[in-house]
Amino acid sequence: MTALSFLDYASVFIFALTGALTASRAQLDVIGFAFLANLTAVGGGTIRDLLLDRNPIFWIDAPSYIVIATIAAALVFLTAHLFESRQRVLLWLDALALSVAVAAGAGVALSLGHSPIIVALMGAVTGTLGGLMRDVVANEVPLALKQGELYVTAAFAGAIAALITTQITSNSLAALAACTAVTLILRAGSIAFGWRLPVYKSRPPQE
Amino acid sequence: MTALSFLDYASVFIFALTGALTASRAQLDVIGFAFLANLTAVGGGTIRDLLLDRNPIFWIDAPSYIVIATIAAALVFLTAHLFESRQRVLLWLDALALSVAVAAGAGVALSLGHSPIIVALMGAVTGTLGGLMRDVVANEVPLALKQGELYVTAAFAGAIAALITTQITSNSLAALAACTAVTLILRAGSIAFGWRLPVYKSRPPQE
Amino acid sequence: MTALSFLDYASVFIFALTGALTASRAQLDVIGFAFLANLTAVGGGTIRDLLLDRNPIFWIDAPSYIVIATIAAALVFLTAHLFESRQRVLLWLDALALSVAVAAGAGVALSLGHSPIIVALMGAVTGTLGGLMRDVVANEVPLALKQGELYVTAAFAGAIAALITTQITSNSLAALAACTAVTLILRAGSIAFGWRLPVYKSRPPQE
Repeated sequence: MTALSFLDYASVFIFALTGALTASRAQLDVIGFAFLANLTAVGGGTIRDLLLDRNPIFWIDAPSYIVIATIAAALVFLTAHLFESRQRVLLWLDALALSVAVAAGAGVALSLGHSPIIVALMGAVTGTLGGLMRDVVANEVPLALKQGELYVTAAFAGAIAALITTQITSNSLAALAACTAVTLILRAGSIAFGWRLPVYKSRPPQE
Repeated sequence: MTALSFLDYASVFIFALTGALTASRAQLDVIGFAFLANLTAVGGGTIRDLLLDRNPIFWIDAPSYIVIATIAAALVFLTAHLFESRQRVLLWLDALALSVAVAAGAGVALSLGHSPIIVALMGAVTGTLGGLMRDVVANEVPLALKQGELYVTAAFAGAIAALITTQITSNSLAALAACTAVTLILRAGSIAFGWRLPVYKSRPPQE
Repeated sequence: MTALSFLDYASVFIFALTGALTASRAQLDVIGFAFLANLTAVGGGTIRDLLLDRNPIFWIDAPSYIVIATIAAALVFLTAHLFESRQRVLLWLDALALSVAVAAGAGVALSLGHSPIIVALMGAVTGTLGGLMRDVVANEVPLALKQGELYVTAAFAGAIAALITTQITSNSLAALAACTAVTLILRAGSIAFGWRLPVYKSRPPQE
């Protein structure tokens, strides 16, 4: 297994956990868990593959991705009641999945020889759109658009870290590691310590 | 006309009726009816075709699908005030469209020689995503994710029935019929008699 | 630069402004502005390109579209507090972007030799779906589905104007101009003077 497909499998598994946790908050049945888990797990990568015209789509090529996501859904269905705060678990798993998926998305675009701007965008698309679909379908405020959180920002910063590392070392493994680390650190700092960029305010400060 | 394109036309027409009924609940104008009818009618099949890289998309190849969906929208625009409970009509039409569309989606994947897991998934995608888009765009709770209803479950069970029938008889017409029947029976049982799978509960039962 | 790519750039820039204004209402950070601006700006054209199987997608071919949309987001981030009624500005900019994007979408389908019905649909898809995604993601009632407004109707009328002009003059520049003018006039009339089609009413008038 290559580093890139390992990242794909890891992000699929972890995103599937977050989809299933969202299903548990909506009190769905086990197939509803599997549905939301798979939508979240393969959603971002599917859009990446459609945009880059990769055929076949990664999970049509290797349906084991679907198997993995469905196992994750079953695991959550059986164990979610053991967690005291599912929302907190969801938040941290989502952070982990985001950082792995950004690396997977940027890695695919890099390996296809795309320009730096497309590499950064594919990292962000792959990282954020699965979770965005999960939240839109479940009618929750998308994590990606929550006020005053580093989310898309973390994804972009990670993708840019991958680009810089590739320039310096031309070692794609190092680039993927740098990408995951930067995204995770920024996102974790935002969750744990409230790191953020200034947000737009409707009125400028009075003097 | 082949059995497969008959199913496609039937599911497009019936899903268009449900889209138009949703438009009537939102009190849109006639073009709003046509828009939501078409989104619902061709949405699931469009995503199936994009995922399977079928070119051209079925309704770009045969715009008569759009004509059919638009006629359905006009019919509903003219007659919907005659129904006492539009929500109930919508529910049953949606059940019918779901079972036909699952067969259409699974049939296409079967005829392209895809593996069983992809056939089942394409059945579910074609059956559920048009209605899901209708509900997300109209800002309603998606039927597919309503608590304690067989919906995605019915779609999957139908697709699996198609797979089993194909193994036994290698008669694709029988497979499509089995798929439609199983999906419709499960979905109808859920609407009429409250059939359901156990749903996730946040707390396990006390002893 | 051809007339068609000028229209694409113009609609990307103006739609990006509307996405960023929506971000300002949600009080996002600057990257959130860029995200929503880009989703709105390239969303409709991306779906057009996926449906028509145009490869590569227009903004993957020319990432300058992303640069333009991001500049628009930055402009709004820096200046939006100067506007008294951002909702009003958004409405008018959206009308302008709609009319330009319908022309861009119809123009692409015309230049690929598609049938009239597909040309009209691609105009409507390109014009309306970017704004629809913006509103769905930001959890607002989609402008395209607001009760008693000409929106999808204006888009369709514009696309039909393009088709008629092409029949008469076979001058594609005139067709694009007619499309933009008709869409904009109908949409502007709807905003300013309340022009509308009759909407569906649940009860027929009593006599």
